[in-house]
Amino acid sequence: MSTKGKVIKCKAAIAWEAGKPLCIEEVEVAPPKVHEVRIQIIATSLCHTDATVIDSKFEGLAFPVIVGHEAAGIVESIGPEVTNFKPGDKVIPLYAPRCGKCKFCLSPLTNFCGKIRNLKNPATHQQLMEDKTSRFTCKGKPVHHFLGISTFSQYTVVSDINLVKIDDDANLERVCLLGCCFPTGYGAAINNAKVTPGSTCAVFGLGGVGLSAVIGCKVAGASRIIGVDINSEKFAKAKALGATECLNPRDLHKPVQEVIIELTKGGVDFALDCAGGSETMKAALHCTTVGWGSCTFIGVAAGSKGLTIFPEELIVGRTINGTFFGGWKNDSIPKLVTDYKNKKFNLDALVTHTLPFDKLSEAFDLMNQGKSIRTVLIF
Amino acid sequence: MSTKGKVIKCKAAIAWEAGKPLCIEEVEVAPPKVHEVRIQIIATSLCHTDATVIDSKFEGLAFPVIVGHEAAGIVESIGPEVTNFKPGDKVIPLYAPRCGKCKFCLSPLTNFCGKIRNLKNPATHQQLMEDKTSRFTCKGKPVHHFLGISTFSQYTVVSDINLVKIDDDANLERVCLLGCCFPTGYGAAINNAKVTPGSTCAVFGLGGVGLSAVIGCKVAGASRIIGVDINSEKFAKAKALGATECLNPRDLHKPVQEVIIELTKGGVDFALDCAGGSETMKAALHCTTVGWGSCTFIGVAAGSKGLTIFPEELIVGRTINGTFFGGWKNDSIPKLVTDYKNKKFNLDALVTHTLPFDKLSEAFDLMNQGKSIRTVLIF
Ligand SMILES: [Zn+2]
Ligand SMILES: [Zn+2]
Ligand SMILES: [Zn+2]
Ligand SMILES: [Zn+2]
Repeated sequence: MSTKGKVIKCKAAIAWEAGKPLCIEEVEVAPPKVHEVRIQIIATSLCHTDATVIDSKFEGLAFPVIVGHEAAGIVESIGPEVTNFKPGDKVIPLYAPRCGKCKFCLSPLTNFCGKIRNLKNPATHQQLMEDKTSRFTCKGKPVHHFLGISTFSQYTVVSDINLVKIDDDANLERVCLLGCCFPTGYGAAINNAKVTPGSTCAVFGLGGVGLSAVIGCKVAGASRIIGVDINSEKFAKAKALGATECLNPRDLHKPVQEVIIELTKGGVDFALDCAGGSETMKAALHCTTVGWGSCTFIGVAAGSKGLTIFPEELIVGRTINGTFFGGWKNDSIPKLVTDYKNKKFNLDALVTHTLPFDKLSEAFDLMNQGKSIRTVLIF
Repeated sequence: MSTKGKVIKCKAAIAWEAGKPLCIEEVEVAPPKVHEVRIQIIATSLCHTDATVIDSKFEGLAFPVIVGHEAAGIVESIGPEVTNFKPGDKVIPLYAPRCGKCKFCLSPLTNFCGKIRNLKNPATHQQLMEDKTSRFTCKGKPVHHFLGISTFSQYTVVSDINLVKIDDDANLERVCLLGCCFPTGYGAAINNAKVTPGSTCAVFGLGGVGLSAVIGCKVAGASRIIGVDINSEKFAKAKALGATECLNPRDLHKPVQEVIIELTKGGVDFALDCAGGSETMKAALHCTTVGWGSCTFIGVAAGSKGLTIFPEELIVGRTINGTFFGGWKNDSIPKLVTDYKNKKFNLDALVTHTLPFDKLSEAFDLMNQGKSIRTVLIF
């Protein structure tokens, strides 16, 4: 019996208030409105941003909220005026919208879209749908969306500009990683840093995004990739994915940037910071060579004090930039699904755990204890 | 009678100690050693860096010293193994060396050269010649060089990698500006920011370097160039050279970056900061558009507290870089001399005063009072 046009009752994880664990509850998911699509989430993975947001380290986030932003699913039904999707399509919901009409969407220079709201605090972006209402209700109360996609729910409603159709034979338990972590790190190396063949790279932070950046550096042809993390247990996997050596700042007697400068006789060509704290931002900038050193910021650490820079550090030829979703316009993601199928890169290695959705809190524990890279949750 | 191989006695301006006015004295200039060239300075202009250095705002500068680093002259004699120059050649001494052999010189990515010493404090770079001695003596005491070129002396000795030959018919009283100010600002726009046709630019600081950046933006085809300075007297010239509008932050009721964002409906494509203080660095970065805003640091202000940046400011698509000598490899300068002759840009407008070298202190006064753009001193 079709659920089209009806409210769907299903399981979701609700963050009722800041700093409290998520509760798995039954929620009601309203049908999609104009230019909206309701999708059944098949697999969703966890990202550090979810944990950070739940801990309320981002000011201004409205509660209750359903977080989750890295998933893959199947279209259940479409709202009026939706032309690119039909029920049964395999899809990936994407927090990076693509309206296709704004000056950003029309420019080849950026993957940004004018539909991104709350620029100064992206975590509070799109907590309601375009009509300023929510599609989620729990215990009679409206529940906020998160980044426009809220994937910690068996069904979710997203704008059709936050969704891409992927190959019918895509493995959803793997390509869910193409919703955030993999394209961000991989694209930061390929699209933003524009890592060149034969170059030397340093990647700070070897979680899911950092390892994806390592993969990006390797696919781009870097000849030397130095991984940096304060958890040495991540080094074996980093090396398996392309890191040529790894450093743990806690094991060193001087700042890691000095060690990298010595190892590379002057500094790396490309540094990618996936951590976002003041210390790694500084290390990333300073470990780049004079002349053409490039430093790309990927990670945003809540409460970070930032990095104080001086013109002297830049006039010697360095460049600083950042990445938003790896620089991919969101319609590039289906191509990455195909690339994965063709074994251009290895997503499997990033998935260390697969659990039923009910074990969400176990998945958070694994992540917070640094024991997992990515845990995929299955509904 | 040839002076070749002999000590030359001539006029020079000596900074005996920090914070004291320069004294014009008779100095002895030794003949050039291996790979050195002695040149007669015909015209030298003043740059803010000279004043800053004399005020001893750069730690570590050795005194006594002969400053000056923007000049043009004629080769008087050459030392052993010099092959590219002969007596009588018109030349411009350049603080940006080009050894032609190091990994930087061999790379198309940078105009940096491995012969640049004291990276962290460029003002103390090359205060002695390659053999660690000075060619200047005054009252029996050795006097230090400055940036390897010391142009506030009627004769000076430079390394042959710090010198370029220019057209025989070059007007030395104008092309002396190609020693620092003009190529720095012009190249920052063209080579570092890579200003694009039809783009919107903001230039902070409308001194010689800033006006040269305005010229660079215009030559690159920018359609809107906003000049910013706290001295509104500079606006007429800025507009004559290409600025489409000018703003004085002291006349505004909100931060200049906010005004620029309003005027441009979202921010400029390119910001160039020729001032280097914390406030202008911040304004320059923040007035750039999300998506592709580019911020280029040109000025270094002694004692600047720098700018604290956060990943959030970069991940929205902004890029920060800097310029060293406008990104020109030093052998590009003869081409700029020809471009000037062919009226590709206007150096004449930058020269507001021409004085005999003896009036050096008057020239400093004009600069410090903001009454001159460039004063050219003639020996
Ligand atoms: Zn994420
Ligand atoms: Zn758009
Ligand atoms: Zn200068
Ligand atoms: Zn060199």
